[in-house]
Amino acid sequence: MSTLLSNQKICGKSREDFLAAIGAFHGWKAPGLVIGGFMVDLAQELIGPGVETDAVVESRHCLPDAIQIFTPCTVGNGWLKILDWDKFALCLYDRHGLKGYRIWLDIEKLGKYPNLYNWYMRLVPKKSLPLELLLDDILAAGRAILSYQAVTMTGLYQREKKSETGICPSCKEAYTLTQGDRCRACQGEAYYISN
Amino acid sequence: MSTLLSNQKICGKSREDFLAAIGAFHGWKAPGLVIGGFMVDLAQELIGPGVETDAVVESRHCLPDAIQIFTPCTVGNGWLKILDWDKFALCLYDRHGLKGYRIWLDIEKLGKYPNLYNWYMRLVPKKSLPLELLLDDILAAGRAILSYQAVTMTGLYQREKKSETGICPSCKEAYTLTQGDRCRACQGEAYYISN
Repeated sequence: MSTLLSNQKICGKSREDFLAAIGAFHGWKAPGLVIGGFMVDLAQELIGPGVETDAVVESRHCLPDAIQIFTPCTVGNGWLKILDWDKFALCLYDRHGLKGYRIWLDIEKLGKYPNLYNWYMRLVPKKSLPLELLLDDILAAGRAILSYQAVTMTGLYQREKKSETGICPSCKEAYTLTQGDRCRACQGEAYYISN
Repeated sequence: MSTLLSNQKICGKSREDFLAAIGAFHGWKAPGLVIGGFMVDLAQELIGPGVETDAVVESRHCLPDAIQIFTPCTVGNGWLKILDWDKFALCLYDRHGLKGYRIWLDIEKLGKYPNLYNWYMRLVPKKSLPLELLLDDILAAGRAILSYQAVTMTGLYQREKKSETGICPSCKEAYTLTQGDRCRACQGEAYYISN
């Protein structure tokens, strides 16, 4: 993959280190995550250095990992919010000023890369598009398949206030009392049975 | 923190590397995440080596990062599912056989560690419990504040089949057609306005 020799940094890393970081965290170099890395890179450049950012992703697939690998925002620290909208878009914004940038995969621009278009729109069987082929096209395309807009946050930016903790009268485990008079598992939502 | 000199491995790491991995990913050594690391460590030992595991966490706070740091499961690769139940519990299971272990913070056992009990149940102001004090107690307690059960999965183990992708007639961005006749943002759920 000759493009790996390029000196261009992505999220502050060489292409090789950028792809290695994706593989190490995600288990493989998923095409969607590599595109997501370019989206984070663009957002970071638009926002500029020294800004404390929070993040929103509009899909559960791949994009949460792009944010978690290349920014300080994670699901567990609450700086990343995940919308299950199945849109390939993310937003990085100043957590104090609530202004930032929303970046998305632009389908019209993607049309110039037939393999990527066919992969994303699922128009051809997966096996006809080997990973190396997709990665070559993604690395060649870089930001050319992305669009962005400057935004002001109108929601999702709130930090959650934790509510009172109690003991579930049924299972005796701790839970948050806002969930009801017993925990969600004991309300019938358990996803497991004891062996 | 003299307990850092212990030779006991946690998630295959020295205590120092274990805490450093938490700080690097999560931004700080959050007490809940350190406990979460001990939970993952116990689950991994119970399941044994060589098993391909998926994971469920029963809280959005801290626990997702414990799974993401110390196992191959991430939100973005779909091997980690997050329940917003506010219960301090996680489950690791064999993704083929659907058997595994559920680990939880046992409030009765926590009672032997008054600082940890008061912190978790939020009975005293945060500032009266400095981080170093909590971490010392958590490292001293280790697994002594955890309980577990062997489980068989009855839900949440399904891998999602992706559905057809289309173009939103309103914003022209790609979305999954199962979301409706236009994307969720154009259905009125947008969390941003354009500047």
